[in-house]
Amino acid sequence: MKIAADTFDEYLRKVRSFHGNAAPGVMLGGIMVSLAQSKLPPSGLYDAICETDRCLPDAVQMLTPCTIGNGWLRILNTGRFSVTLYDKHTGVGVRVFVAADKVKKTSEINKWFFGLVSKQQQDTEKLLGEIELYGESVLGVRSVQVDMAALVLPEPDYVLCASCGESHLAGGGGLCLICRSETLIADR
Amino acid sequence: MKIAADTFDEYLRKVRSFHGNAAPGVMLGGIMVSLAQSKLPPSGLYDAICETDRCLPDAVQMLTPCTIGNGWLRILNTGRFSVTLYDKHTGVGVRVFVAADKVKKTSEINKWFFGLVSKQQQDTEKLLGEIELYGESVLGVRSVQVDMAALVLPEPDYVLCASCGESHLAGGGGLCLICRSETLIADR
Repeated sequence: MKIAADTFDEYLRKVRSFHGNAAPGVMLGGIMVSLAQSKLPPSGLYDAICETDRCLPDAVQMLTPCTIGNGWLRILNTGRFSVTLYDKHTGVGVRVFVAADKVKKTSEINKWFFGLVSKQQQDTEKLLGEIELYGESVLGVRSVQVDMAALVLPEPDYVLCASCGESHLAGGGGLCLICRSETLIADR
Repeated sequence: MKIAADTFDEYLRKVRSFHGNAAPGVMLGGIMVSLAQSKLPPSGLYDAICETDRCLPDAVQMLTPCTIGNGWLRILNTGRFSVTLYDKHTGVGVRVFVAADKVKKTSEINKWFFGLVSKQQQDTEKLLGEIELYGESVLGVRSVQVDMAALVLPEPDYVLCASCGESHLAGGGGLCLICRSETLIADR
């Protein structure tokens, strides 16, 4: 089992460093990103869509040039544990997802993925072992066309907030979201 | 100028590797995160809020344990170029922001921050030099109280989509967002 250029254990160490712990979602996520990459021409320039904000985005950020801050990774939160890598010019790409019917044939992955045990009850070592051995077998792959026009948002306007004086997204009657809420992030 | 444990140039090299290029927003963002950290007791456990999805989240992910995938970094998109680090138990923290009135006293930072020149016209080397020398002088710092109760979302329900069969966020009449849209990410 290789995850991009790394062995499972090498990737696991990198996950501990970036994500803070060897979370099953980032480990399975690494296998997913790797699988998607293996289906695409290596010379292309790919953007990424994660359909969840849990764990999976960190696998994308670790294994591809796509990050939240550079905008090449988008989170489109349908809640599906799925990643799509697609050509940034044509929208043609590959979607890798967790296939519920395949997960049900496993033991530890099934318990974790469907939340059948609490985190405290979870046997993480056994689960990570199963992800290493059988992770790829619970995945599905599809060739997809991403509707890029639907993803492009208009360039927003920025104005100075009439209260705090900082530059913020226009709208809200001249006040930024935080000055409107007063309590969300309050001076003390 | 140190950014956490790094010199400006060492941090710049890490930014090129993670973010893809030495974007001014990630460079200034590094100074912002560093400044916030210097105002907090080093022993605490801090979560982060970025008020923009542009560049700044990558500085947070590079310099703190907070990532999008582990949930310790949240993006609350007011559009303000601002980061808050706060104690995850009490909500007490520090907010660092770009002060528009201070930016107006600079040359290159002013042109970049207020979009007065196109990316093509921008003298990036000069801009990065100004960020290194004067970046900290355009920032403001406030002690803040984060309303953590307002940030906590209820644990969502997941169900299997009646069309694709994948586990997704409940709602939408039994279909996941992508099966409802049909074209957003379409099989080909």
